[in-house]
Amino acid sequence: MRPLIAVCTFTIAVAVFAQPPSSDHPAPPDLKSELLAVRDAALTDDYAYQQVAHLADNIGPRPAGSPQAQAAVEYVAEELRKLKLDVKLEEVRVPHWVRRVESAELVEYPGQASQTQQKIFVTALGGNTPTSAAGLTADVVVARSFDELQALGHAKVAGRIVLFDVSFDKQKAAAGLAGEAYGEAVAYRGNGPRSAADLGAAACLVRSVGGADYRLPHTGFSQPAGIPAGAVSAEDAGLIARLAAQGNVRMHLTLTSQNEADVTSYNVVGDLRGSEHPEQVVIVSGHLDSWDLGTGAIDDGAGVAIAMETAQLLRQLNLQPRRTIRVIAWMDEENGGRGHDAYAKDHASEMARHFAAIESDLGAGHPFGFEAKINPDALPLLKPVQEVLQSFGANVIHLSTRSPGSDIAPLARAGVPAFGILQDSRTYFNYHHSAADTLDKIVPQELRENAAAMAVLADALANLPGPLPR
Amino acid sequence: MRPLIAVCTFTIAVAVFAQPPSSDHPAPPDLKSELLAVRDAALTDDYAYQQVAHLADNIGPRPAGSPQAQAAVEYVAEELRKLKLDVKLEEVRVPHWVRRVESAELVEYPGQASQTQQKIFVTALGGNTPTSAAGLTADVVVARSFDELQALGHAKVAGRIVLFDVSFDKQKAAAGLAGEAYGEAVAYRGNGPRSAADLGAAACLVRSVGGADYRLPHTGFSQPAGIPAGAVSAEDAGLIARLAAQGNVRMHLTLTSQNEADVTSYNVVGDLRGSEHPEQVVIVSGHLDSWDLGTGAIDDGAGVAIAMETAQLLRQLNLQPRRTIRVIAWMDEENGGRGHDAYAKDHASEMARHFAAIESDLGAGHPFGFEAKINPDALPLLKPVQEVLQSFGANVIHLSTRSPGSDIAPLARAGVPAFGILQDSRTYFNYHHSAADTLDKIVPQELRENAAAMAVLADALANLPGPLPR
Repeated sequence: MRPLIAVCTFTIAVAVFAQPPSSDHPAPPDLKSELLAVRDAALTDDYAYQQVAHLADNIGPRPAGSPQAQAAVEYVAEELRKLKLDVKLEEVRVPHWVRRVESAELVEYPGQASQTQQKIFVTALGGNTPTSAAGLTADVVVARSFDELQALGHAKVAGRIVLFDVSFDKQKAAAGLAGEAYGEAVAYRGNGPRSAADLGAAACLVRSVGGADYRLPHTGFSQPAGIPAGAVSAEDAGLIARLAAQGNVRMHLTLTSQNEADVTSYNVVGDLRGSEHPEQVVIVSGHLDSWDLGTGAIDDGAGVAIAMETAQLLRQLNLQPRRTIRVIAWMDEENGGRGHDAYAKDHASEMARHFAAIESDLGAGHPFGFEAKINPDALPLLKPVQEVLQSFGANVIHLSTRSPGSDIAPLARAGVPAFGILQDSRTYFNYHHSAADTLDKIVPQELRENAAAMAVLADALANLPGPLPR
Repeated sequence: MRPLIAVCTFTIAVAVFAQPPSSDHPAPPDLKSELLAVRDAALTDDYAYQQVAHLADNIGPRPAGSPQAQAAVEYVAEELRKLKLDVKLEEVRVPHWVRRVESAELVEYPGQASQTQQKIFVTALGGNTPTSAAGLTADVVVARSFDELQALGHAKVAGRIVLFDVSFDKQKAAAGLAGEAYGEAVAYRGNGPRSAADLGAAACLVRSVGGADYRLPHTGFSQPAGIPAGAVSAEDAGLIARLAAQGNVRMHLTLTSQNEADVTSYNVVGDLRGSEHPEQVVIVSGHLDSWDLGTGAIDDGAGVAIAMETAQLLRQLNLQPRRTIRVIAWMDEENGGRGHDAYAKDHASEMARHFAAIESDLGAGHPFGFEAKINPDALPLLKPVQEVLQSFGANVIHLSTRSPGSDIAPLARAGVPAFGILQDSRTYFNYHHSAADTLDKIVPQELRENAAAMAVLADALANLPGPLPR
């Protein structure tokens, strides 16, 4: 998941969660029983877990442009062909950012023992400009907000390494407002380097955006600023800030990661053809690329796996919805979004035939239901979905004015009804974009619940008798 | 803290904790009021926090033999001189183990994408034999116990890299049995490499001994085995085990850390001379060296800091106990224990004059009281201590048959009454021996409670009218 999308997903969900769906709009009995069958199959199936296990364990980190991303494209395409989907690889030119040397040491600081330095745990941010191979050495200036940086001004910032020491609000995340906590802190990762560069900084570091305290740097995209940009662990941000309060702190910083030439890659698109309206499409999706530090299990192998599971369940149950179910494994969600941009451009003339789009990109925790950018008049048509998902507490539909996922944002802007799965994300940002995004973070039964939510919603949408109000 | 000491400290404490101290043995009113004054001063003082902050932040990691360890020796000696203690640097020859290159990659595994490898998060263990600079490449064999390794036998182990995938029991730790959980898992770090070497293994890796899941390798001492030895993160152990269950896994492993020539270092010994029996000594202590990955805040800058605080509080309150209070900052607790061995040898003839010894080496969490290897007949004499510490719940005295700390173990063996502070260690092993052992893990008020516990006990012991039964 990238910085600026889905940031507020979790904030209002609890209130909505308290509303049980009414039974004013009963589902046609045959659809209801089909949805129940889909749900029950999903809650006992291991296909999605096997898929994310393969992506995370066997293929591993899948940054756009990497051999692993290409292997993942081929793997998912082949798996969807095994399900007898009509599979297309839709070409996308993607950035190919390669992490190289990243290291930092404090070389001068108050109370320093002779002949010693202190190691700083740092990781490069996507979009950054590299240092030279030898790195750069400069004094560090600490700011706790954009305002503090502006108050320091050019005289105190120029030629220095700026550290934005802005904490992720752990209490807010624990209270179920992880998206809001993320949004507040990620502004510094996204825009901090540019604001530092505007004042002549030599480089910019941010405190990692995440809730854990295990010396874990979190990477992510930042707006290109023309200066090197990285994230340090929460502990290192605290250390530097404490030392800088005592006296001068000087750092040697090496971040040689950079963009190689663009690479041809693909969105994987697999259609399970509709029986009555094959030209009308319901998208189920997650993104196939990941950051490179971890193995991309919760961000977002899980999303791809449950989208694949939707098709698998329909095949397993010999179901063919009236509309086409389109599985999409998006490419390059993390480092620029070229995949969804390409899809929106290539399919621009078909937006009216996109009946709805569903995405999962907030981990694999227990789903409470959906965030939806839809016309409220569509809500009564979704009652059967809520009734079927209520058994495991996934019956929320939380209306939103923004896209509930970054890859379906262009579709949402074009008026396509857009749904994102609303996961329990209280611990998501502890692991997100870090080396600790690994398979063990997925609880198999919670993944099954996510698969059930996506499959039931997709099957219901694809079988509705009439159109969804836009 | 090292492997095999204090492993069981926490297991029986809860039962003892339930016993309120009786008032059958009231303290002399003047001592009781002195202890109350010491306690109250400790609970509002920042000296200990300032000391551990300097050790962790300004000096940093302090492995035995390092320039930082020497700087720490000089710093603590100078601080104790400021308190007008009689300070001696007692010479110790210590190992000088230097961490160098450490890296591991899976180079062959089931489902591997072409031209790719998987990075493994590994750290070298103290006592290990280095690989060559180029590293070694071998197949990996996974064992979940010593018995499983034996069952594999020489044929399946020889020439391979053994991975002991033995989990730290998080539930046990959460239930207050962290020491027991640690003891079970650390057996593999301590003795796994030797058992693997006995079957001809090329190298040995263990799953990190710790309760966190943030891709964090934990170092520590292992018995020299003549083969390279390291610890991988919990996630990497799981990954390797899952892949090895699918087919052959081959690893390239580089661990070039090794011992340099021994170095002269020091135990820092500072005496606050007793008013009536200056020849009788009550030791307050922690260890000054740390592992090199973190900054040694909870293991064991905190212990040194609260021992220093004991002297500071007595000076602040103008108190001179009847016996000598001896502050010791031990050297080389982590990598062989040369500091306490040297002390025991150099002071062998003075054991009868060592009235008691106190150590803190289980972090800086809330103290419940003490573990004590003492004659039970001494318990009534400690009632005033329990009464004074009960206000913040530090009144447990848990009798043990083993030394409650590794640095005072030689003294305990010689019959000296030995006390260890019994901290809440439920999260201690999440951070212990890892890069995440940093200042932010210390809650200032909990550190003050530890200082209060140590200072009150030490002052009481140093003022007892008669001998402590041995």
